[in-house]
Amino acid sequence: MKTVRCSIIGFGAIGQGVAEVLLMKKEYLENMGLDVRVIAVVDSKGATLSPEGVNLADCLARKREKGTVALEKITGLEVIKSIDHELVIETTPTNIETGGAGLQNMLAAFEKGLDVVTSNKGPLTLNYRDLVETAKAAGSKFRFEATVGGSMPVINFAKEVLAGNNIRSVKGILNGTCNYILTRMLEERASYTDILAESMELGIAETDPTYDVEGIDTACKLVILANAIFGLDTTYGDVDVTGITKITPEALEMAYENGHVIKLIGEVSRDRIHVAPRLVPINHPLAVGGTLNVASLDTELAGEITVTGRGAGSVETASAILSDLVSIYREQ
Amino acid sequence: MKTVRCSIIGFGAIGQGVAEVLLMKKEYLENMGLDVRVIAVVDSKGATLSPEGVNLADCLARKREKGTVALEKITGLEVIKSIDHELVIETTPTNIETGGAGLQNMLAAFEKGLDVVTSNKGPLTLNYRDLVETAKAAGSKFRFEATVGGSMPVINFAKEVLAGNNIRSVKGILNGTCNYILTRMLEERASYTDILAESMELGIAETDPTYDVEGIDTACKLVILANAIFGLDTTYGDVDVTGITKITPEALEMAYENGHVIKLIGEVSRDRIHVAPRLVPINHPLAVGGTLNVASLDTELAGEITVTGRGAGSVETASAILSDLVSIYREQ
Repeated sequence: MKTVRCSIIGFGAIGQGVAEVLLMKKEYLENMGLDVRVIAVVDSKGATLSPEGVNLADCLARKREKGTVALEKITGLEVIKSIDHELVIETTPTNIETGGAGLQNMLAAFEKGLDVVTSNKGPLTLNYRDLVETAKAAGSKFRFEATVGGSMPVINFAKEVLAGNNIRSVKGILNGTCNYILTRMLEERASYTDILAESMELGIAETDPTYDVEGIDTACKLVILANAIFGLDTTYGDVDVTGITKITPEALEMAYENGHVIKLIGEVSRDRIHVAPRLVPINHPLAVGGTLNVASLDTELAGEITVTGRGAGSVETASAILSDLVSIYREQ
Repeated sequence: MKTVRCSIIGFGAIGQGVAEVLLMKKEYLENMGLDVRVIAVVDSKGATLSPEGVNLADCLARKREKGTVALEKITGLEVIKSIDHELVIETTPTNIETGGAGLQNMLAAFEKGLDVVTSNKGPLTLNYRDLVETAKAAGSKFRFEATVGGSMPVINFAKEVLAGNNIRSVKGILNGTCNYILTRMLEERASYTDILAESMELGIAETDPTYDVEGIDTACKLVILANAIFGLDTTYGDVDVTGITKITPEALEMAYENGHVIKLIGEVSRDRIHVAPRLVPINHPLAVGGTLNVASLDTELAGEITVTGRGAGSVETASAILSDLVSIYREQ
């Protein structure tokens, strides 16, 4: 049995999803020869620590009841620097202005030779090259499937399953909120404003939806794909971005009568990275509805290969983190 | 540089596709540290042999001009047994009655400790357990992504990318000919017989289309998925099969008016394996048109994850063989 000691840094929806998934999959991981032991769970107020492994069910209950897991006053950065373990699961909130705490946490982890699995887009959008090179120099593993498309696998899919197959471009719907709004506007012949209000009530759109509806979230994900799949060195500023706020129900209806839907499509190739509303034929694999995400990879040998899945959700995103963890530590 | 000596046994459309892909990707493979050298190309009449590596362009030209690569009178089985190499690329035709030459070839390869990558469904449909256990006992690698869905990855996708994610069922469209016929019947409001005739003219349906339209091909692929993904020990006889020959344009149209398409869906779970025409909502990820294949995996943690791609084509299928080859031999 291989013991993997890990910290969960950031205990919002995704960090809690990771805790739930590790509880659910304990036996499965043990059958695979992995004893995954969480030695620290950290949120913005402090941490629960135990070198033998914290009780994750207690952490989840405490977070629900008190709004924090904090039993001790220690930050994520201090945990990374001072406590022996192998893997940092970095699930602090995305900040695309500065990289936020996540950037410091990841760099500190690599400096200590720890592995990192993350769902945090900020640091990867701003400092991809730095992070990858620091990880490589330290011999650390660095995986981030959960940053793009939640449970819809695209990075590992491109790099592993399509090994040997040159990828010319990736295009897709990478934001479930925008997809939901456009799908509902067409179904209900309703205005952007009305459906946005509905989405907020349902918790599908955030209170401040700018990040989603202006295409910024999609752009960040494209930057990660550009760097991870195409080996580019891009940042957010390299992306042409148009959001969905100007789309009318009339435009959606006219497109539909001509056999098309309008979707917010992000596309990345070696030459260009852009996000904009585009027409998609109704029976094309990219034409998926609701909050689904989809990515279509144009490959040299196999034509278009498309993956569809749930782009959000705490357990869904945590499942991508679990797959990354298993890929790093299971016996080959 | 790691030298991988391989034989191509079977030089029909897929074997030729493998030769083309190896020619195209020579530099790519070398950059990855792999010198892939084909020491034998075999068809039903004989073989071209060279311990230093045959000239694949010459083999392709000879096959086109003379209908065979045979320069020497030797069978695939004899090549496997008598010539030193590491990998057998088995692309002989599928025979689901006896397993055909493929079954003997694979077993002989494993007995010599050779690795096998194949597109041949027959042996896997009839003798999966035997093959996997013989390979394991010999320490041989055995990969067969190309047997299901051509270039649409599903086996490696389930086993690698979704590592840690329990899969409850797989359902999908695994036969491009049936999908083409049903798509065209709806588009043209034409009868099964008329569109079948069109498909034959276009080379999309075989002269004897039974294997496709009766659902047999789909059933074979489900057997492989059942064994590879769910660890079952099933054969063709365990599948309930209904084909598409009784579907009328009226049924398709009525379904469409109610927001559905009719597709030949194969579904496998631990409890049941079956193939039958089923209704699929128009904006569901399974509702893809033309000759596309699609597979939807119902996962415990991430809900449904769907993959779509070209299910046939020699280069497309060869690309799946290439991915398997790279997965076996590249440095981890």
